Amino acid sequence: MNAATLNVLALSGSLRKGSFNTRLIEAAKGLAPKGMTIDIASIRDIPLYDEDVRSQGVPASVKTLAQKIRDADAVLISTPEYNYSIPGVLKNAIDWLSREEKQPFDGKPIAIMGASMGKLGTARSQYHLRQVFVFLNGLVMTRPEVFLGAAHEAFNDDGTLKDDGTQKIVAELLEKLWAWTKRLN
Amino acid sequence: MNAATLNVLALSGSLRKGSFNTRLIEAAKGLAPKGMTIDIASIRDIPLYDEDVRSQGVPASVKTLAQKIRDADAVLISTPEYNYSIPGVLKNAIDWLSREEKQPFDGKPIAIMGASMGKLGTARSQYHLRQVFVFLNGLVMTRPEVFLGAAHEAFNDDGTLKDDGTQKIVAELLEKLWAWTKRLN
Amino acid sequence: MNAATLNVLALSGSLRKGSFNTRLIEAAKGLAPKGMTIDIASIRDIPLYDEDVRSQGVPASVKTLAQKIRDADAVLISTPEYNYSIPGVLKNAIDWLSREEKQPFDGKPIAIMGASMGKLGTARSQYHLRQVFVFLNGLVMTRPEVFLGAAHEAFNDDGTLKDDGTQKIVAELLEKLWAWTKRLN
Amino acid sequence: MNAATLNVLALSGSLRKGSFNTRLIEAAKGLAPKGMTIDIASIRDIPLYDEDVRSQGVPASVKTLAQKIRDADAVLISTPEYNYSIPGVLKNAIDWLSREEKQPFDGKPIAIMGASMGKLGTARSQYHLRQVFVFLNGLVMTRPEVFLGAAHEAFNDDGTLKDDGTQKIVAELLEKLWAWTKRLN
Repeated sequence: MNAATLNVLALSGSLRKGSFNTRLIEAAKGLAPKGMTIDIASIRDIPLYDEDVRSQGVPASVKTLAQKIRDADAVLISTPEYNYSIPGVLKNAIDWLSREEKQPFDGKPIAIMGASMGKLGTARSQYHLRQVFVFLNGLVMTRPEVFLGAAHEAFNDDGTLKDDGTQKIVAELLEKLWAWTKRLN
Repeated sequence: MNAATLNVLALSGSLRKGSFNTRLIEAAKGLAPKGMTIDIASIRDIPLYDEDVRSQGVPASVKTLAQKIRDADAVLISTPEYNYSIPGVLKNAIDWLSREEKQPFDGKPIAIMGASMGKLGTARSQYHLRQVFVFLNGLVMTRPEVFLGAAHEAFNDDGTLKDDGTQKIVAELLEKLWAWTKRLN
Repeated sequence: MNAATLNVLALSGSLRKGSFNTRLIEAAKGLAPKGMTIDIASIRDIPLYDEDVRSQGVPASVKTLAQKIRDADAVLISTPEYNYSIPGVLKNAIDWLSREEKQPFDGKPIAIMGASMGKLGTARSQYHLRQVFVFLNGLVMTRPEVFLGAAHEAFNDDGTLKDDGTQKIVAELLEKLWAWTKRLN
Repeated sequence: MNAATLNVLALSGSLRKGSFNTRLIEAAKGLAPKGMTIDIASIRDIPLYDEDVRSQGVPASVKTLAQKIRDADAVLISTPEYNYSIPGVLKNAIDWLSREEKQPFDGKPIAIMGASMGKLGTARSQYHLRQVFVFLNGLVMTRPEVFLGAAHEAFNDDGTLKDDGTQKIVAELLEKLWAWTKRLN
């Protein structure tokens, strides 16, 4: 990490192609401060976690994702809320990653946001995710919290965010993530 | 449901063959009151949840599991704790089930227990799971809570539980689940 | 309890005279089904919980409130959210009540609602409160959840609720509380 | 703050004179690294939070406590668990403090520990407290977590901790709090 750039690895908690959370990350790229890069890594190829499988060898998809997270200066997670908690597919990816000897999230600066069609904008999911990172020693920023509700109406056709306030809070999240990362280093 | 029998469908939150939670359910079978049957349904064949996949057709494994839950008088879940929350594989199965039009958990009496090697015995995972069932209208019993810690030392070679106190609280959980189911019907 | 009436004891989690939550309970009175009475009991006179004080004698205010709860068929709590959790004053009242030998909330049907100026409408506070009632064996209804946001704009001068949708969901909460109480008896 | 000293302000979440949590803080004093001072501030004189009272003037006890927290380099909280959550009296103190214009906890390094007679050692209370500090921008350390169970058997007559492992983890908590504070400054 140098003073002029910040490499952020982003994870979307949904596998759906048109995922609101993947789109929120794409929109965030356009709102990032100069010098910040945001790369999305997919969790699609992470299989169901099974210790019997793991003991036969860690899947390449897990190793690759773990390394990408280790290599990043900071992590940005955009999570849906499924049934008042973290999506199983996102939690499953984290469960695999957490079994790597060199923990990818350990000491890593993290920002969380989320998009959903409902009013609460994934708040419940985000608090569960914060508790997960207490265990993993992921250093999750407190503020701002980005709860994007009514996500099905939030994007323009070109993928940008319609609402000025939403654009501002996402931009603020990214600026604060940079400051948080600097503060921790 | 009649007065003399109770058919319980049990789910283990781990895919591992030697899973402590699967073993805890097996041990529970031997502690069940007369007239109660406990059948384990596996979540192993439930794929990763992806709305694009679901829109092409719900996997047979999901439909079968949903129907088993609907047919049961009550549900018993034994969950590990992965990274201070619900295992991804268990949450993933619930995410699929929750998308069925006729919700399998809706109004269903549920008991939760869990086994882990640590001291807290999956408490954190169980509270997250309770929040999930608020959304799904699963009627989770309050008491007793079964937090089996040091699970690697808990079982005899024949699969029974070593500790008298643990046997008693599991037996109590099952009796209370029956009473809870009656009360709700 | 008989079939034609339901006596509900209501608690507001705020001491402020113009409390949105107290007003929400007042508005609920006008939306209650025929035969349901809703009486508000104040937590104002419950002192700060201190075991050294309690061992000298339980305050009359605690004993009186405990008895009112025991005498009620069901409990309705309207809670603010202070700092992402239960207000200290409400939690403090519950802490006192929980030390009574004959637990007031034990086995009691409970409905939770809440009003706040923010967007989430006390959701975070309500989930913490639900966890409290797991311990106390309070039988909290799952649905509907009433999260009244923008509460400062929600009421008419006569205390009624402006919004039709809000009126409907509060009325539904009360009907469901009655049905839940019947189901549990 | 200079490199050689760290002034820690400690809060106990219980008002009881013989409080296990107050004793745990006292024991922590003897385990603190050279240069670290730990001063306990009482929450005893903080009245019940009532916005009508606050608008008449903030109590001196609140102002004094807020200033002590602002003046400290870091905060150490030892919390009981009452009814699966934060004690009302501790939450009430935080509710008052949070209404001060210059937020006492804003950006403050914080460590949490707790003692209880039960097995879980206040874990449930600590996670709720962590969520509170998300709102208040209190920078709570992730590790180690100190869950002191069976607290009634934990102390020698002179107030020191009997168990070596407990002594070590409390000492580690304090060292890490110092490192965490440095890292954030």
